[in-house]
Amino acid sequence: MKQKRFILPESEIPTHWYNIHAEMPNKPMPLIHPGTKQPLKAEDLYPIFCEECSRQELNDKDAWIEIPEAVREQYAYYRCTPLVRAYGLEKALGTPAHIYFKNESVSPVGSHKLNSALPQAYYCKKEGIENITTETGAGQWGAALSYAASVFDLNCAVYQVKISYEQKPYRRSIMQTFGAQVTPSPSMSTRAGKDILTKDPSHTGSLGTAISEAVELATQTPSCKYTLGSVLNHVAIHQSVIGLEAEKQMAMAGEYPDIVIGCFGGGSNFGGIAFPFMRHNIKDGKTTRFIAAEPASCPKLTKGVFKYDFADESGYTPLLPMYTLGHRFKPANIHAGGLRFHGAGMIVSQLIKDGMIEAVDVDQLETFEAGTLFAKTEGIIPAPESSHAIAAAINEAKKCIETGEEKVILFNLSGHGLIDMQAYDRYIAGDLQNHAVSQEEVNANIEADKLD
Amino acid sequence: MKQKRFILPESEIPTHWYNIHAEMPNKPMPLIHPGTKQPLKAEDLYPIFCEECSRQELNDKDAWIEIPEAVREQYAYYRCTPLVRAYGLEKALGTPAHIYFKNESVSPVGSHKLNSALPQAYYCKKEGIENITTETGAGQWGAALSYAASVFDLNCAVYQVKISYEQKPYRRSIMQTFGAQVTPSPSMSTRAGKDILTKDPSHTGSLGTAISEAVELATQTPSCKYTLGSVLNHVAIHQSVIGLEAEKQMAMAGEYPDIVIGCFGGGSNFGGIAFPFMRHNIKDGKTTRFIAAEPASCPKLTKGVFKYDFADESGYTPLLPMYTLGHRFKPANIHAGGLRFHGAGMIVSQLIKDGMIEAVDVDQLETFEAGTLFAKTEGIIPAPESSHAIAAAINEAKKCIETGEEKVILFNLSGHGLIDMQAYDRYIAGDLQNHAVSQEEVNANIEADKLD
Repeated sequence: MKQKRFILPESEIPTHWYNIHAEMPNKPMPLIHPGTKQPLKAEDLYPIFCEECSRQELNDKDAWIEIPEAVREQYAYYRCTPLVRAYGLEKALGTPAHIYFKNESVSPVGSHKLNSALPQAYYCKKEGIENITTETGAGQWGAALSYAASVFDLNCAVYQVKISYEQKPYRRSIMQTFGAQVTPSPSMSTRAGKDILTKDPSHTGSLGTAISEAVELATQTPSCKYTLGSVLNHVAIHQSVIGLEAEKQMAMAGEYPDIVIGCFGGGSNFGGIAFPFMRHNIKDGKTTRFIAAEPASCPKLTKGVFKYDFADESGYTPLLPMYTLGHRFKPANIHAGGLRFHGAGMIVSQLIKDGMIEAVDVDQLETFEAGTLFAKTEGIIPAPESSHAIAAAINEAKKCIETGEEKVILFNLSGHGLIDMQAYDRYIAGDLQNHAVSQEEVNANIEADKLD
Repeated sequence: MKQKRFILPESEIPTHWYNIHAEMPNKPMPLIHPGTKQPLKAEDLYPIFCEECSRQELNDKDAWIEIPEAVREQYAYYRCTPLVRAYGLEKALGTPAHIYFKNESVSPVGSHKLNSALPQAYYCKKEGIENITTETGAGQWGAALSYAASVFDLNCAVYQVKISYEQKPYRRSIMQTFGAQVTPSPSMSTRAGKDILTKDPSHTGSLGTAISEAVELATQTPSCKYTLGSVLNHVAIHQSVIGLEAEKQMAMAGEYPDIVIGCFGGGSNFGGIAFPFMRHNIKDGKTTRFIAAEPASCPKLTKGVFKYDFADESGYTPLLPMYTLGHRFKPANIHAGGLRFHGAGMIVSQLIKDGMIEAVDVDQLETFEAGTLFAKTEGIIPAPESSHAIAAAINEAKKCIETGEEKVILFNLSGHGLIDMQAYDRYIAGDLQNHAVSQEEVNANIEADKLD
């Protein structure tokens, strides 16, 4: 029998995260303080984030950062996650390609988000913080932070976009089961929320409103810090555990990837699987291709522009050098809620600029077709976000049918879709649509931003 | 760092199932044909089940049955499942006990049910069958069979209890995503369904109506067989893979269980974890205790009587020698839908009778309290069914606090609760109740059956 799954013993779980920031051929341009217009220093971030995460955010010196033992102990609750050879999918496609996926869906909260939630909660605890807060849309990050807070005995307050709070009650229940306080945003509990609701009492919320409320809570509450699940450099550091494990597991399988694929929202799972392999392109002459798969409805990598932009709609955050659709871009309400973000992380953006990462965009219907085939052949119902990576992997595997090449394709299954069955229901009923955005629409949006 | 999870390499996945039927000190009394009142022969079952499962059902000679390679290949998609030391739960309880759980929730369908769905579908395929059918309540078994049918390229028709079909649309969507045809029962697609609906057009269905429809479809359709996910002996054989793996994994941890616990509905997950260890009580002088944890609302093991009874409400099935609450017993609508069955499997019943298994009953609120503590400390939201086993394990671990004993407790986490978050929502809202049944109510129900 051919081996299906490759799992490292606990003693092989990485002891250090990888920080590609230290080894990039061209470093990203600095974060800019929106008030002073000067490059940000770590201390500028202390009022919002815990100190260790603030330092990691700007660390471009250390390629390896030790994982605290308390975090490694918690990683062992679900790591090493399996590397799986997708024999079932290969057979269904009839491809000579060797398809592997890293199964991050086996974490307690069903996605890779916990890899960063645990260290962020741990560092807060270590620095004497008692309360942490964040925003969440569909709820993957909020669920991860709620669980991490429970583990490290912190109070956790999550602002969930109001329409998700009402439409996806199961993720809210998961956060509450882990003990978090969940508030639909906009709410009357913050000044930002009150202002928004005064102007528009029926506002259904956005990541922008929820970020504003969470940041306000963190800065106005004693012993409280804000946390974020994607986009930022320290999140990419924590997520590197995915690729570091995968590298050892590919070696167990006797292979090395020709192509590494991740879906792309802010970059957390993509960077996690890609950067550890990319260091061998940078240092050891490997020629692996890296493909970021984004929704055609939110195509910042394929149709956006590279510029300094805010990470939130209201313009409260530092200015980031990144590919963006403009910070007021309103993506269609696709089911891959985790990919509905207008910008990319600054490291990924620089690597795209340098031609080290390719980007593809995928229509919603194609992602559900790919996800359903994957479910039937590999037995895991994927998150709508992860189905973007599956669709891109299928496209590469189909090219191998034509060329006859036995390419080794590795993608990251960032999460399962068990809390997203409503979306599959709508797909089965023929009730889903594509929402591709044209280059003209993107350009118009960018131009509109300049008028402020 | 102390090891948290114990996982066997694929080469150690069992090659044979264990059949305790062959080694029981006292064999169970035979199944009785309801018409002839004679003991059933395997051939009597062929019109309903595939031939291999019919033979396994009556096999009391072979203690070991080879697992077909095609099934082992599919087991490798999710097995070996992890054995986990519950350090988080132990710490929260402050117990000196060593608590382990076998995590069957990592299967493609989120529960142990796939362990039997795969071989049942495989044997049907091997015997040239093209269609399989079954009934399902909450949908765990239906989901498992739908996936197994997809794997072995069979058509699959599932009759789902109508009220579950409407109340739990996510499990229906899972079955449909795997390609199954799902029909709410009672339906107009069978004679049995039509008869029921003619009498009561607003009938919301029961396992009894769904079994009648599925059996009718199997017997009236060319190349179609019926399958069942619990109660029967061949299901217990297939599920033994759980305990056989756990035995090797406990050895990896350097321990052997003093107590083995499973929740109890029809016996599939309980027998799966218990029987392989019980063989060492039978043959090697071990003194492990085995505890079946059932709902106080459906207490056949703790308050039922041992007698011949039907497995379904309408009295279509063979007569089984078992602990029962009477085949017309209507359990309260608790959230642990998989445990709402009036009888026990005949092997478990005999072992209970012989004092080799203990039974405890647990109230609904206690199970949710236990499940929530487990979620917060071990990071897995358990199925409401599995929370019965957790509650029983916690009770045994608390006894160890008093006695100071470092007992080794092993329980089976039969599934996750991600499709049951509505139940957790109601628990958090204070909206759940206990539904304990008294001995008087049980006795009255048994007496009423005699009046037929």
